[in-house]
Amino acid sequence: MSTAGKVIKCKAAVAWEPCKPLTIEEIEVAPPKAHEVRVKIISSGICGSDNSALNGIIATKFPVILGHEAIGVVESIGQGVTIVKPGDKVIPLFVPQCGSCRSCKTANCNLCEKFDRFGFSALSGVMADGTTRFTCKGKPIYHYASTSTFTEYTVLSDICIAKVNCHAPVEVCLIGCGFATGYGGAVNTAKVTKGSTCAVFGLGGVGFSAIAGCKDAGASRIIGVGTHKDKYPKAMQLGATECINPKDYNKPVHEVICEMTNGGVDFAIECAGRIDTMMTALQSTYLSNGVAVILGVASPADTLNLSPGLLLTGRSLKGSIFGGYKGVNDIPKLVEQYMNKKINLDHLISKKLKLDQINEAFELIRNGSGIRSIMIY
Amino acid sequence: MSTAGKVIKCKAAVAWEPCKPLTIEEIEVAPPKAHEVRVKIISSGICGSDNSALNGIIATKFPVILGHEAIGVVESIGQGVTIVKPGDKVIPLFVPQCGSCRSCKTANCNLCEKFDRFGFSALSGVMADGTTRFTCKGKPIYHYASTSTFTEYTVLSDICIAKVNCHAPVEVCLIGCGFATGYGGAVNTAKVTKGSTCAVFGLGGVGFSAIAGCKDAGASRIIGVGTHKDKYPKAMQLGATECINPKDYNKPVHEVICEMTNGGVDFAIECAGRIDTMMTALQSTYLSNGVAVILGVASPADTLNLSPGLLLTGRSLKGSIFGGYKGVNDIPKLVEQYMNKKINLDHLISKKLKLDQINEAFELIRNGSGIRSIMIY
Repeated sequence: MSTAGKVIKCKAAVAWEPCKPLTIEEIEVAPPKAHEVRVKIISSGICGSDNSALNGIIATKFPVILGHEAIGVVESIGQGVTIVKPGDKVIPLFVPQCGSCRSCKTANCNLCEKFDRFGFSALSGVMADGTTRFTCKGKPIYHYASTSTFTEYTVLSDICIAKVNCHAPVEVCLIGCGFATGYGGAVNTAKVTKGSTCAVFGLGGVGFSAIAGCKDAGASRIIGVGTHKDKYPKAMQLGATECINPKDYNKPVHEVICEMTNGGVDFAIECAGRIDTMMTALQSTYLSNGVAVILGVASPADTLNLSPGLLLTGRSLKGSIFGGYKGVNDIPKLVEQYMNKKINLDHLISKKLKLDQINEAFELIRNGSGIRSIMIY
Repeated sequence: MSTAGKVIKCKAAVAWEPCKPLTIEEIEVAPPKAHEVRVKIISSGICGSDNSALNGIIATKFPVILGHEAIGVVESIGQGVTIVKPGDKVIPLFVPQCGSCRSCKTANCNLCEKFDRFGFSALSGVMADGTTRFTCKGKPIYHYASTSTFTEYTVLSDICIAKVNCHAPVEVCLIGCGFATGYGGAVNTAKVTKGSTCAVFGLGGVGFSAIAGCKDAGASRIIGVGTHKDKYPKAMQLGATECINPKDYNKPVHEVICEMTNGGVDFAIECAGRIDTMMTALQSTYLSNGVAVILGVASPADTLNLSPGLLLTGRSLKGSIFGGYKGVNDIPKLVEQYMNKKINLDHLISKKLKLDQINEAFELIRNGSGIRSIMIY
């Protein structure tokens, strides 16, 4: 019997307040309104920024359903939705593509002006009409990053949805954030060149994907920088030519990297979301043309304090959200690439869990020992 | 009678100590040693960074002969010099091109590793052998920025010299710094695109040249930003489509520019060498792909304090010295462009003075009323 037009009761991981474990609850998910889509989630990855939202580092309204990296199937659509139909396989987009703003209409832009900009101002936590589609124990539960994927069902705006290959497997959820952010950060934002030297800071899902991007772009040397040595073998499998641990040196790691690379790397990619690592990345690049790319999300309270001389000499400091990809256009192509074995997501997955085990997944993010966990619903 | 191999006595403007007027002195200029060239200066421009050096903002050794933007004629050459011969017309290069370092061997790099890096560490003030070629009243006088052009004769390393068209007129001195810095900052560093919107901060010689670069790159809208309204007509002649004065608004000028340009300009170019203007330039660019370029030299003590979120959204912050030009290769081409009337330097010159009037030229820099003064020797 069709559930379209009806409230769905299902399981979700609710974050009732900051810094506390999530609890698995039965929630009600309202039907999609006009230009909205209700999606049954198949699998969801967990990302450092989910943890930052839970910690209050990224401003978020509570109670909330977190999660923004998933794959699912359209259950029903609201009035006016033309981009998908029930049964379509989709990846929720935390960066929308409205198609009509200046950013969407410009080739090298991906930050749609409808973006619910986490990290920069408070997340609205609501749908376009100012209300939520989730309730639990009679209370409205806020949305997160326009996606909210730690639930069996979610509701998305139709500008926050990419239709993908109907045979895409559970692993493809990682394209919804971590993989795209890291891989695109290397190929679209840094524009890593053939034969270049690269350093990637932070060996999690984003960092590993950045390493893969550097490799596919033809970099001749890729230095992975991280403090968990157990991750080095996987980093090497993905394309790192060597890995270093800043704790192994009694001098700043940018000096180590500059010595290793005759004055600095061509491209440095920061995937840790730490101010000190961002500075290190910039200082690790060659003075005359180095490009440092910020992919990690720092606390909005954090400030980069840098001498303009670091840039005046010829360096660039840039960044991107979602790897510079336009979600609706580009995400389906990445899914095809995965299905054609042009890109590999399997190396990124350190654990597959169930939604019930979500607090374990958060713990793995916090202690930094895993790469990426995905939950299969 | 040839002066080759002999000490030349000539007139120079000596800065005996910081923050004091220069004095015109008779100095002795030693013959060039191996791989050095002695040059008779024809004309020299005066630049904001000469004033910064005099003020002690740029670390400089005193007593010193300032000046780094000139044209001259080779008087004699030292052993091993092959790039020029006596009688050749040359532009001294404050950014060398040694041809053998990583930067010189890389296409998109111009900051030769032999650069006597002003603003970043102390200027050495000496030639490669650790000594000076200038003496006055029995005291050694330091070199500045590998050039020292406020003198009738100077000595340059042969990697700091660009041979140019023998018919190049006195105005061409401006290509030696201000014009190249601004014009190249727009076309090489910002890579201004056809139809784009630009803002240029600081309406001096560098800013005017950046405006010309934006225009030649095909920008559709060029906003000049400066506080001296008397400069606006010339800015418009060079290509600005409008000029604004931050003092005319009761809100930050980046907000004004974002409102004028549907969210921000594509390219913002900072030519004032001020930290607050650098921040304003970055904030004036569009969040999804804006490019802010630093061309002005701030005090090494100044720090840019910026939220990484400004970059994470898609903006870039970069900079260049000498407009990204490789001096030996590119400066002769700019001279040809001037002589073929492809570029115009005449609009940049607000006053032509004699070397004796150098303190008047410094005063014009300080009060910001002029554009660029040149001294004709």
